Amino acid sequence: MHLNVFTQCSPSPQFKGFWRHPADRTATGYRSLDYWTGVARQLEAACVDALFFADIHGVYDVYQGSWRPAVRQAVQIPSIDPVLVIPALAAVTRRLGFAVTYSTTYHPPYECARLFSSLDHLTGGRIGWNIVTSYLRSATENGLGDFLDHDKRYDRADEYVAVARALWERSWQDGAVVMDAEADMFADPGLVHEIAHRGRWFDVRGPHQCEPSPQRTPVLYQAGASARGLEFAATHAEVVFLTLPDPARGAEQVAQLRAKAAELGRDPRSVKALQGSMVMVAGTREEARRRAEEYVRLWSGEGQLAKWCGWMDVDLAAYPGETPVSEIAGQGSQSFVGFLKRLGPDKEWTVDDVRYLVATARRPRRNSPVTLFGTVEEVADRMEEWLERADVDGFNLMPCPTTQGIDDICRLLIPELQRRGLFRTAYDPQEETLRERYYGAGVRSAQCLPA
Amino acid sequence: MHLNVFTQCSPSPQFKGFWRHPADRTATGYRSLDYWTGVARQLEAACVDALFFADIHGVYDVYQGSWRPAVRQAVQIPSIDPVLVIPALAAVTRRLGFAVTYSTTYHPPYECARLFSSLDHLTGGRIGWNIVTSYLRSATENGLGDFLDHDKRYDRADEYVAVARALWERSWQDGAVVMDAEADMFADPGLVHEIAHRGRWFDVRGPHQCEPSPQRTPVLYQAGASARGLEFAATHAEVVFLTLPDPARGAEQVAQLRAKAAELGRDPRSVKALQGSMVMVAGTREEARRRAEEYVRLWSGEGQLAKWCGWMDVDLAAYPGETPVSEIAGQGSQSFVGFLKRLGPDKEWTVDDVRYLVATARRPRRNSPVTLFGTVEEVADRMEEWLERADVDGFNLMPCPTTQGIDDICRLLIPELQRRGLFRTAYDPQEETLRERYYGAGVRSAQCLPA
Repeated sequence: MHLNVFTQCSPSPQFKGFWRHPADRTATGYRSLDYWTGVARQLEAACVDALFFADIHGVYDVYQGSWRPAVRQAVQIPSIDPVLVIPALAAVTRRLGFAVTYSTTYHPPYECARLFSSLDHLTGGRIGWNIVTSYLRSATENGLGDFLDHDKRYDRADEYVAVARALWERSWQDGAVVMDAEADMFADPGLVHEIAHRGRWFDVRGPHQCEPSPQRTPVLYQAGASARGLEFAATHAEVVFLTLPDPARGAEQVAQLRAKAAELGRDPRSVKALQGSMVMVAGTREEARRRAEEYVRLWSGEGQLAKWCGWMDVDLAAYPGETPVSEIAGQGSQSFVGFLKRLGPDKEWTVDDVRYLVATARRPRRNSPVTLFGTVEEVADRMEEWLERADVDGFNLMPCPTTQGIDDICRLLIPELQRRGLFRTAYDPQEETLRERYYGAGVRSAQCLPA
Repeated sequence: MHLNVFTQCSPSPQFKGFWRHPADRTATGYRSLDYWTGVARQLEAACVDALFFADIHGVYDVYQGSWRPAVRQAVQIPSIDPVLVIPALAAVTRRLGFAVTYSTTYHPPYECARLFSSLDHLTGGRIGWNIVTSYLRSATENGLGDFLDHDKRYDRADEYVAVARALWERSWQDGAVVMDAEADMFADPGLVHEIAHRGRWFDVRGPHQCEPSPQRTPVLYQAGASARGLEFAATHAEVVFLTLPDPARGAEQVAQLRAKAAELGRDPRSVKALQGSMVMVAGTREEARRRAEEYVRLWSGEGQLAKWCGWMDVDLAAYPGETPVSEIAGQGSQSFVGFLKRLGPDKEWTVDDVRYLVATARRPRRNSPVTLFGTVEEVADRMEEWLERADVDGFNLMPCPTTQGIDDICRLLIPELQRRGLFRTAYDPQEETLRERYYGAGVRSAQCLPA
């Protein structure tokens, strides 16, 4: 089983309002190295695969037509750039991997290639790239380039990844760096190549600015949920983050993903599927009850609305409460259309209903199929069920509440998974790179991807 | 006196061929955290102001119309991204500052502002930005944006810096982060503002994505040598790197810079002028002689030509050797025209002459006005002369050879400067940020710059 821990360099990653938890250290720690090095050491001691950093550019400003709710509730603002944190964490760990969100929208692929080669050198081959195509219109307001339609963003991202991979995999041959002092030859230019890419979106000549790093290509992560996103993931991703609704329907989606990969000529098992789950574990039932109450108390409805409306690109504050949601379907993003579909056709849902659904904390249930909430035994049981029934390869754990949630994963959950023989008790010393942790010792860049 | 040490995340910073030095560890160390944390610790123990990172995007491909000489001689390729190294060095030091080259050409100002705010948070206020407008045409070949004329690049950079400073200084007021749990208010949106910039080059609404960092605006460094560059420096820079030919002519240029700053309403002494000098110190005359011989032996003429032709944007290999340089003046950059002016009108210089000048190692002379070469006493004398006669505030030292040069600066040169009372023997504990080291405890962002 593979376990990543999800975070963001922001005061309250994922769960809005939770910076108010009494034991929270993330709200101020997110911008300090001491905080992050502590987290990294803790996760490495627990043998976690990788620390996963979400990120955005711009601000959530759809709800109420304003960025003010996001600023007020710390909805991914303020935030700092996660790529800068990673090398400092690599310096205090030896095996923990790092995956970082980096958009194909805001920087040229030549720069992206240099960034990840640099990270791969500095981490000794422990870096993954979570490929996203960005969705916030507000980025455009800040001079970060044009906003493209959903599918066009993916078309462009296809070419973007192809350019980056060409720079990583084809520009510098193995052995190009000869360091022949006598001949005054650091690298043999005969073994270094232009990539001469001329495409619809990008013209990039090369050569790559970096010599080959341990992994060359970072481990490629992706989290596309739409049909187009699924195709993109099956094409490019080694690790896919899913947010499956329950093990049964999850099994279908995972099968679909693996089938799509097989269609593209890949080993269907070479796509590692991780279920993204909120995790909140407690030592006892009593403690779990207390946690559930605290969860409801800390939940910020306004923060949640600000985040949700940004995701969906629809302003729930802009319509009278009784407006049927079917009437505003065309105003929002593809995600919103998908959401409406999932709401089901049986009831005429209104804007008020949706606002209620989004803003109201539902007390976590110990038997919920999707959240990993409960006593440590209950959560471990649920995880076993996911592995067996949905055929996922592991989890991207979203610790709740942020700081204590990380403690609980390391102190309670992982020891239980280890007792059950479900999770490693030590890193395999043969697996030096992050890719090797997913595919076994000796597996090199691009072996698990279509050429 | 202020002392920075110059470097680059590349096998052979500044001096081409010197990766072949027997004691060199930079050629492979440039891409490892162990190497850099070692350097940072060493410089902090010596009380150096800051470690300064040069950087480029793209490759030197003017000489012979090809990037192959640059790859062969490791002329700033391969290289990794220096911004990624800095937080790891901040984690192992407490006082050392960091200055990093970041171009106004390749990333939007909104991203630049976030990057430096992130670095300033992570370093606890120890970051400086060396503002450059990039000059390599090859960057364009790699999809990094259009190549602009020299003066237009500076016009654009003026606006770029204005946008970044607005995000740093005017978007989040002090006290905006209230963390009022009761009111579910992380930050007070009434104290956070759009910058609403609409200009010739950029439209940026804001707000800034980061809460205020210790320095807000990083210390602004610049190294413009042209008339337009000097104006830019006098307008925006707190620290200016100069490459002055000798103390007498240097005095004129420094006076000119300070006069220009005064014209713009600044305290002329608020512009800190650092002379950029190669430094190669030895314990004894005998050792200095040995070093000079080694210097000539290691020098890579081809590497130097590749670098020089890239700087000047003129291919010295493209003309018959007897071509008078006056005939090719129009082909090169403004730097090349300046170079030709300095060659003087008395002799009809040919391309062969220039090639010889560039490619041939001149044995360093102990009495040269510009290099800091000789015994430690001789070098310290020379530095005193620079301080007194040229009115510079300190030096940006280019260690030669790379690895041993850093050792020598820390082990030989700085102790001698300390004995003479010319350099601090401990960091002032009151000066927490890099800016305070230049301006004294308590000096905040932007106080020393025009509004």
